[in-house]
Amino acid sequence: MTGPRRFPAADLRAFISRAFQAVGVPPDDADTIARLMTEIDLRGGDGHGIFRLAQYIRRIRAGGINVSPDIRVVRESPATAIVDGDNCVGHLAVHRAAQIAMDKAAACGIGWVGTRNSNHAGAASVYAMMPLAREMIGLYSAVGSANHLPPWGGIEMLLSTNPIAVAIPTAEEPPVVLDMATTVAAYGKVKTAAQRGETMPEGWMIDRKGNPLVDPKRADEGFLLPIGGYKGYGLALIFGLLAGTLNGAAMGRDVVDFNKDDTTPTNTGQFVAAIDVKVFAELDVFKRDADLVVREMRSSDLLPGFDRIRVPGEGSHAVFDQRSRQGIPVPDELLQVLQSLAGDLAIARPGD
Amino acid sequence: MTGPRRFPAADLRAFISRAFQAVGVPPDDADTIARLMTEIDLRGGDGHGIFRLAQYIRRIRAGGINVSPDIRVVRESPATAIVDGDNCVGHLAVHRAAQIAMDKAAACGIGWVGTRNSNHAGAASVYAMMPLAREMIGLYSAVGSANHLPPWGGIEMLLSTNPIAVAIPTAEEPPVVLDMATTVAAYGKVKTAAQRGETMPEGWMIDRKGNPLVDPKRADEGFLLPIGGYKGYGLALIFGLLAGTLNGAAMGRDVVDFNKDDTTPTNTGQFVAAIDVKVFAELDVFKRDADLVVREMRSSDLLPGFDRIRVPGEGSHAVFDQRSRQGIPVPDELLQVLQSLAGDLAIARPGD
Repeated sequence: MTGPRRFPAADLRAFISRAFQAVGVPPDDADTIARLMTEIDLRGGDGHGIFRLAQYIRRIRAGGINVSPDIRVVRESPATAIVDGDNCVGHLAVHRAAQIAMDKAAACGIGWVGTRNSNHAGAASVYAMMPLAREMIGLYSAVGSANHLPPWGGIEMLLSTNPIAVAIPTAEEPPVVLDMATTVAAYGKVKTAAQRGETMPEGWMIDRKGNPLVDPKRADEGFLLPIGGYKGYGLALIFGLLAGTLNGAAMGRDVVDFNKDDTTPTNTGQFVAAIDVKVFAELDVFKRDADLVVREMRSSDLLPGFDRIRVPGEGSHAVFDQRSRQGIPVPDELLQVLQSLAGDLAIARPGD
Repeated sequence: MTGPRRFPAADLRAFISRAFQAVGVPPDDADTIARLMTEIDLRGGDGHGIFRLAQYIRRIRAGGINVSPDIRVVRESPATAIVDGDNCVGHLAVHRAAQIAMDKAAACGIGWVGTRNSNHAGAASVYAMMPLAREMIGLYSAVGSANHLPPWGGIEMLLSTNPIAVAIPTAEEPPVVLDMATTVAAYGKVKTAAQRGETMPEGWMIDRKGNPLVDPKRADEGFLLPIGGYKGYGLALIFGLLAGTLNGAAMGRDVVDFNKDDTTPTNTGQFVAAIDVKVFAELDVFKRDADLVVREMRSSDLLPGFDRIRVPGEGSHAVFDQRSRQGIPVPDELLQVLQSLAGDLAIARPGD
């Protein structure tokens, strides 16, 4: 068995850019989106990178995304801003927000920039990690693009899996990068289990009577469970208020399910914060101390059944190294989708 | 059956202030600490308010806390600072940090202030809620004062239950206030179960072989479980890096267990961030929108077994209203401890 075909990151990046340009996205914007989407795949975020391309293109062709947006700062203070994405591809709005957050952090020590009228922007970790290049800590959260989570004790899906991502620079260790949904399982894991004909563990989902739901094909009959019960519900609510409501973006019942609706503007909200390490500590001292903490975690004796301690971000860091050298694996079903998309758009296939 | 004796908040506040003054804390500082501790009890944080008084006083008498600290800003940028508590009572350092964070938020839109050389400061929610008085959002986290949590897959307790608290202003609804440990149960709940001779639910703790530990009297043989498994571990680690390492405060193996050691300086770290709502939105619009989100949550149909949907903070808000009118209940065992403390310190008892 040979496993899925692998493509150099540059080939996928070029293909993604071609696809966006074919539906009217200006070349610079298409390149930015393609770079971010490819970085997601390089880091192992397989459900959030090129896997989403066909859906993004479908939405653009349906008129649900503005390909000539006027992305602009609509509110601003010395250390904060709101970027209005004008219904752009989400990556562009969050990328802009991250740049502004870093500039403000360079001036003020911290910058916190929200988005409104944005769209699905892929994996949270990519944006949380941007400030690392400037020796800053990054924080990111978003209102997810479909509601799958009821408030604790309820059955109406009023909340999304609102992710939280934080990236912290280190010296010799991989950066510490947390990227988590506030639900036990992200919805993508349910979809993957359904595709593979697998049963889900108890604790991922319950049905409308509160019973465990383990058949992912019945996912529409139930909903995701938050981590820590009411605590995960609290996190999803709070980060939804910060990433959505505070920015004048959708939250709660006005969240559009972008899997089922290709045309209604989603008014997605996100935020990126950057914290300049050097206003808190000597940079080298902090990075060395962060290394020490990481190594302490790893040095713990193990529970039975575990072969090692992992630190958030080290897995995707290893995947990044491997895929940068060996290419990004594209499963057959996805490759067929991409090739079919190439035909529809009359562009060269990936790798061609 | 008459329940525990109740005391007006002002009586407990005066008693706490007398106790701190009796061990050398200047009157202004003693009043500040007493006000914050009483507020915790008013809001129902029964394990973090006056319940801790005897321990704080014991630590001060053992020389483990500096009663004449030089609390000062040691690093500063326009929107950030670090407050060095000089080993003060933790409440004083975090109170100062919160004031500075709010002032910086008023100038820059956001302020983020860390502490070092601080100590245990009571309940997280009190500090997250301070910015509400200035129409700001508050965020707070801390490195807990004893390690009870191993990294995921490990058995060495290298992490505390590092709490996360966020407070968001509303219009007519109680403010949304999340205050959660990153473990399924806070350690105080284990202590309470032990005192009451109760069994703990599976999922709170495991022993060193990974088996469920349900007898709270055996708590020393195991450790707490994080919410969402590796996710809660990731949250505890990340917020420990932000509240501890970034501020030059203790984290990991150098955390002092303040329950077992009354003299070693803890170098506790915390942070408070304040976000000025009005730089993001018209204040009235935001508060009304937050109300709407809260009411949406509450309007969900219910799962079997639930009588209503709760929103984070509404429970403690209701307790605050009730205790402000009817007084703060002090269980008999605690009252005996306080009366004995009054004897030791030669001060008037609570209510006298």
